[in-house]
Amino acid sequence: MRPLITLTTDFGPSSPYVAQMKGVILGLCREVDLIDITHAVSSQNVREGAIALADATPRFPAGTIHVAVVDPGVGTARRVVYAEIGGQRYLAPDNGLLSLLVQRATSPPQWRVLENDRYWLPQRSSTFHGRDILSPVAAHLALGLDPAELGPLLAAPVALDWAAPRRSGANVLGEVLFVDSFGNIITNLTRGDLVPLGSATSINVQCGSRKIRGLVPTYGAAMAGELVALIDSQDRLEIALVQGHAASVLKVRAGDTVVASYSP
Amino acid sequence: MRPLITLTTDFGPSSPYVAQMKGVILGLCREVDLIDITHAVSSQNVREGAIALADATPRFPAGTIHVAVVDPGVGTARRVVYAEIGGQRYLAPDNGLLSLLVQRATSPPQWRVLENDRYWLPQRSSTFHGRDILSPVAAHLALGLDPAELGPLLAAPVALDWAAPRRSGANVLGEVLFVDSFGNIITNLTRGDLVPLGSATSINVQCGSRKIRGLVPTYGAAMAGELVALIDSQDRLEIALVQGHAASVLKVRAGDTVVASYSP
Amino acid sequence: MRPLITLTTDFGPSSPYVAQMKGVILGLCREVDLIDITHAVSSQNVREGAIALADATPRFPAGTIHVAVVDPGVGTARRVVYAEIGGQRYLAPDNGLLSLLVQRATSPPQWRVLENDRYWLPQRSSTFHGRDILSPVAAHLALGLDPAELGPLLAAPVALDWAAPRRSGANVLGEVLFVDSFGNIITNLTRGDLVPLGSATSINVQCGSRKIRGLVPTYGAAMAGELVALIDSQDRLEIALVQGHAASVLKVRAGDTVVASYSP
Repeated sequence: MRPLITLTTDFGPSSPYVAQMKGVILGLCREVDLIDITHAVSSQNVREGAIALADATPRFPAGTIHVAVVDPGVGTARRVVYAEIGGQRYLAPDNGLLSLLVQRATSPPQWRVLENDRYWLPQRSSTFHGRDILSPVAAHLALGLDPAELGPLLAAPVALDWAAPRRSGANVLGEVLFVDSFGNIITNLTRGDLVPLGSATSINVQCGSRKIRGLVPTYGAAMAGELVALIDSQDRLEIALVQGHAASVLKVRAGDTVVASYSP
Repeated sequence: MRPLITLTTDFGPSSPYVAQMKGVILGLCREVDLIDITHAVSSQNVREGAIALADATPRFPAGTIHVAVVDPGVGTARRVVYAEIGGQRYLAPDNGLLSLLVQRATSPPQWRVLENDRYWLPQRSSTFHGRDILSPVAAHLALGLDPAELGPLLAAPVALDWAAPRRSGANVLGEVLFVDSFGNIITNLTRGDLVPLGSATSINVQCGSRKIRGLVPTYGAAMAGELVALIDSQDRLEIALVQGHAASVLKVRAGDTVVASYSP
Repeated sequence: MRPLITLTTDFGPSSPYVAQMKGVILGLCREVDLIDITHAVSSQNVREGAIALADATPRFPAGTIHVAVVDPGVGTARRVVYAEIGGQRYLAPDNGLLSLLVQRATSPPQWRVLENDRYWLPQRSSTFHGRDILSPVAAHLALGLDPAELGPLLAAPVALDWAAPRRSGANVLGEVLFVDSFGNIITNLTRGDLVPLGSATSINVQCGSRKIRGLVPTYGAAMAGELVALIDSQDRLEIALVQGHAASVLKVRAGDTVVASYSP
């Protein structure tokens, strides 16, 4: 069975920089399957990359090697790490890119700092460690290298602050996580956060200047042009404009406040 | 030999939602080759998705499994279907997404409604059936599942109305099918529709406010900036602006009328 | 071991035209690995395609077959060629698309003109030779076809003029090669061109209306919003705006002059 390596970057769709990484991997390990998670992460947006990784990578076969490069600190003293989280294997800069995966993990992750340059490209730039360090290390892991060879254990990797929803009287306060390619507004409020508020029809959602009464089960339950709130495919509260771009109309963006409340 | 699965969606280039589908497939069927047809279909544009599928998928090896997700009705009562058309296999919402393939088919397609949830993900969202129903079913088919296990036969799938070119006196009237990424205007008039009008040099094409005299054999037969009409790589009449963006200049879009006529 | 074929085009990210090429290849040679180099080359920009090919393809395993389609002259008298350059194999229009690879090659390339239509699709359009000629030829090569079968040797392929940096007094004059997806300005000046000017801290770079004093080792060595010059991952002088889009701010584009000079 061929090993499986995925790639996640902020290089832009169809970037030739991604192809350079694939060339390095295939040059070292010809028999491997390569899958793109996404290369459309907003430039240097570690938080957005962390969400894409946490949503997609746990669905892959156990042991898959995930290479993630959203790396504004490339070439500085920031570490580069290997992690085992939830049966998956990751290679990434140590900047919080894996921290949403960690927050959701049910068993403690294992970390190593990449220090053994024997498995890196001999010639390394200071601006593209994804190609010069992470890609060759991924290829060596795919060939069967023991991760203990990569470098020493790491106790405290960098973690981002992932705001938890909080109660305030009869309200639950959350925030916009990101806006997807349809313009749908994805929040950090989950199905579990809303259950205490009552049934779907009795929940109000405030986002930007607009209040939405009740949740719909799916987009098609409303008319084109209608603004709706629903529980999305990741079990998160989402605000959508049916056949439109909700985020543009509501002028909201990542970090903005969303309030869910009970409406009798 | 590995089975082959293709993916077509309107999720946007390099979308992590596509990667979630691939993760589900690979989690069930590790030995499979995955190919992207396109993820740049305009959001919820079933007609545009149907054209991409009809143009690209017949070129794949017989038995290829094509998963198509342009699905504005996701989670509503709309059916999800399996179809065998021209030796290829398809999984899609029943919203006309396969209807241009059907129109071009030379033998009757076979249809089944997906009803047997044994081959779906156990936890299903109401907004992402591409991941929760179509992807696992594709993986099971790749593993050798008999399609008869998926659900009952379907007699009358949803079909879009694909306008046929029509004669009107000395003219042939057609319409703009879509605008491609170069800005070229692709019409529903084919080489066969134009043959009765005479030789290439004697055909006039009216599109937007402009009339083009004669067909050229290829883009390079004209000068930069020149507006030309030609038979394209799908045997369709196409209007192009050499080294420019014809659709922006002519201000035409899908559904607009195109008239071909004889000019002595 | 499966053969490996890569694809480079200007068809746009996630284009269904690319999928048509893949369908043709897989229809002839089912056991092959397909990798995208990039499909985001600016429309009909042969020079930009040449740079992407020269940067990425040499990293692939020897013998990889690279299909490249940036082809404004498709269907005209321009030739279509096969080339062996630096252990890699290429199929492309003869318009200079491979000429930066040639300039960097350390041994003489071998060229053939594609003339034997036995390995082409039987039905060929005049506007999509990437699908109708290059893809089936790539599949046949992957199946083991001797390149001598493709057509006669070619002595003088088309070459673009790749401006060499030049000295002018205490200055080295170069030009902007391209702007990448981060907005970074990539120049044709290399590490080797700058060494004679002295140490990194003593080099000034003039680009657009701005002068940058000294090179930094990497992006993270400067503050957000700072304009920096550095040697990039291809050993080229690059001008970047930390966490910004340098090319927009400096209003420079491919072909603009860049001057490096010594500053005591």
